[in-house]
Amino acid sequence: MGDVIIAGIGQTDVGEHWDVGLRDLALAAIEEAVRDAGGLKPEAMYVGNMLAPNLSNQAHLGALLADYAGLAGIEAATVEAAGASGGAALRQGYLAVASGMVSIALVVGVEKFTDRIGSQVEAAAATAGDSDFEAVQGLTPASQAAMLMKRYLHENDVPADGFAGFALTAHANGAGNPHAMFRRPIKRDTYARAPMISEPLNQYDIAPSADGAAAVLLAPGERMNSPTFAPVRIAGSASAVDTLAIHDRQDALEFASCGLSAARALAQAEASLGDIDFFEYHDSYSIYAALALESVGFAERGKGWKLAADRAIALDGKVPAATMGGLKARGFAGGATGIYQAVEATLQLQGRAGKNQLKQARRGLIQSMGGPGSTVVSHVLQTAD
Amino acid sequence: MGDVIIAGIGQTDVGEHWDVGLRDLALAAIEEAVRDAGGLKPEAMYVGNMLAPNLSNQAHLGALLADYAGLAGIEAATVEAAGASGGAALRQGYLAVASGMVSIALVVGVEKFTDRIGSQVEAAAATAGDSDFEAVQGLTPASQAAMLMKRYLHENDVPADGFAGFALTAHANGAGNPHAMFRRPIKRDTYARAPMISEPLNQYDIAPSADGAAAVLLAPGERMNSPTFAPVRIAGSASAVDTLAIHDRQDALEFASCGLSAARALAQAEASLGDIDFFEYHDSYSIYAALALESVGFAERGKGWKLAADRAIALDGKVPAATMGGLKARGFAGGATGIYQAVEATLQLQGRAGKNQLKQARRGLIQSMGGPGSTVVSHVLQTAD
Repeated sequence: MGDVIIAGIGQTDVGEHWDVGLRDLALAAIEEAVRDAGGLKPEAMYVGNMLAPNLSNQAHLGALLADYAGLAGIEAATVEAAGASGGAALRQGYLAVASGMVSIALVVGVEKFTDRIGSQVEAAAATAGDSDFEAVQGLTPASQAAMLMKRYLHENDVPADGFAGFALTAHANGAGNPHAMFRRPIKRDTYARAPMISEPLNQYDIAPSADGAAAVLLAPGERMNSPTFAPVRIAGSASAVDTLAIHDRQDALEFASCGLSAARALAQAEASLGDIDFFEYHDSYSIYAALALESVGFAERGKGWKLAADRAIALDGKVPAATMGGLKARGFAGGATGIYQAVEATLQLQGRAGKNQLKQARRGLIQSMGGPGSTVVSHVLQTAD
Repeated sequence: MGDVIIAGIGQTDVGEHWDVGLRDLALAAIEEAVRDAGGLKPEAMYVGNMLAPNLSNQAHLGALLADYAGLAGIEAATVEAAGASGGAALRQGYLAVASGMVSIALVVGVEKFTDRIGSQVEAAAATAGDSDFEAVQGLTPASQAAMLMKRYLHENDVPADGFAGFALTAHANGAGNPHAMFRRPIKRDTYARAPMISEPLNQYDIAPSADGAAAVLLAPGERMNSPTFAPVRIAGSASAVDTLAIHDRQDALEFASCGLSAARALAQAEASLGDIDFFEYHDSYSIYAALALESVGFAERGKGWKLAADRAIALDGKVPAATMGGLKARGFAGGATGIYQAVEATLQLQGRAGKNQLKQARRGLIQSMGGPGSTVVSHVLQTAD
């Protein structure tokens, strides 16, 4: 098993791209990643996508995007694991290069949500849960997150706006990311006055669904990265699934797969949690950010919200998180999200994160999640030296 | 890169499973494969599925099926490449084990088509083509195959029932496969009198869409296979995409990705076409079987149909094909199809193919196809000794 580096990155703005289709978004990210890698040609392409078969009537994205990018003849396929599709595609690209069978792998995440209205997106996103036993009862991703948040508030002593810190941090960081959907900081008051979506989940507890594409080029360790930037190594890669449904778990407030996949990735990287300089979590809902912090081990049970309230997750905090805005402010672009995390972590590790550059960024943990911790893919990225 | 063997296989009957859902079909195949492998426990699961997000409102099959099989905690994801989803999932499982990162990988293909009526399945299957430029015009997989067949008949001198040999062979072989959907031989007359579906494609030129699941357990080469059966090695594995749409190709009657992926897989296996004892092609349409035979190199251009007419593809022919009935008689179970091919090839190589056992079966080529040759995944399976 060989070393794998990130040789190039690309991303589009996240937002409402009314004038651009799925394939054009993907192509923009692909072309930027290939340019960033100094023109490396991929032998294989893995596409992370969540809902195109439902929302765009388009499956078979591997062949579609390889063709559109002028890459007919290479290998290509889509990898799907609901909201973790991006992370899962990155994992497959990693395995392909690590196996030695594929030299250069392109991993592209793409999603086009805004061609449909919000309720259609939410209904389609419910296919990530158990269709026969959950969606059929009317359960949606947001109502599920609301129930978990309610349970969390029941078990723990959290003040009324205890979760505000997640949105505040995300939006503060989004302000420094030119690709983010929301680029203005918000005030605590904004959170407190936000309309309720599914009680106790308010508008600022929920990441916005949006369009976007991001891409990374993976290469064997012995290849140099783009000459301009320090090489970034994928030091750890792991994935774990939990029960699909919350009702099948002994403990609703533990995202076991967050802990399991992070522990596996850290073990491979021969690192401990204390060695992690920043954490890109899957904050589709603020409660999921809190549970990720706890289940991975950054916070004790019931105390994840405090890391946000105490600004420990800020850029100058102990555990910087969502450093480029996270899902909340950069935007949740479905299957592209896990690739955005890899792109953003690479920017931090290479000192290219602009206004949001961390003082110390030698090793980051990124986590891509599908469902309420049902699939979690963790990667440890670090500077090669 | 390490050797990878098939350590266990499982399959359900292909057909109309009115009383069984997607997860139960998959579970039956998984349990049989695990039993066949003497109880080996998978660390990762790759699911080949084509249309569950559309037809069953169910995505996120990795977590769903791992959970249902009692495997929460392992790694899991879905791999999609339209009709080639099964082959693409097998390829990812192969890469995972070859990389050394995953010890035992379970690859399961599953599809549930019959919960919807045929026109809904055909509309959903059109998502495998270009939604914005083809499906939107009303092009369906069958009408596309019909156009290719018409062009083939225009360019080549083929008698009226020239394609009958494909259906005759498939149904003759299906009769010997207890898992096949159609288990009765047909007569040349049956083909000739079959109703036209999309001229010149008649009912017997088209494989039936059906429900089914198949599974294989992959293990590193150094592990012994189930003690009962001779080990089967994945000697070659490769995938290639072509343009998604036929209208973007210079030559509509060459499935370049059939040739490209077969050549790559054969090169890896250090074998030539003459070393191949049998060929499992993706005969979703008889014209695709003919084009696969030609593009891979078993027949000259325009002569693929003659291999069928001359019985060269029969069990005792020069190039036995669709040895357990192929898509035409075993049935086309979407993303399960590529895994059925792997299961059937393993049965042949291990001498477990019953009535359809080939006299010589040391090396087989299997090909899983999505769209009209848009994605083709080829594997060379061979006896380990």
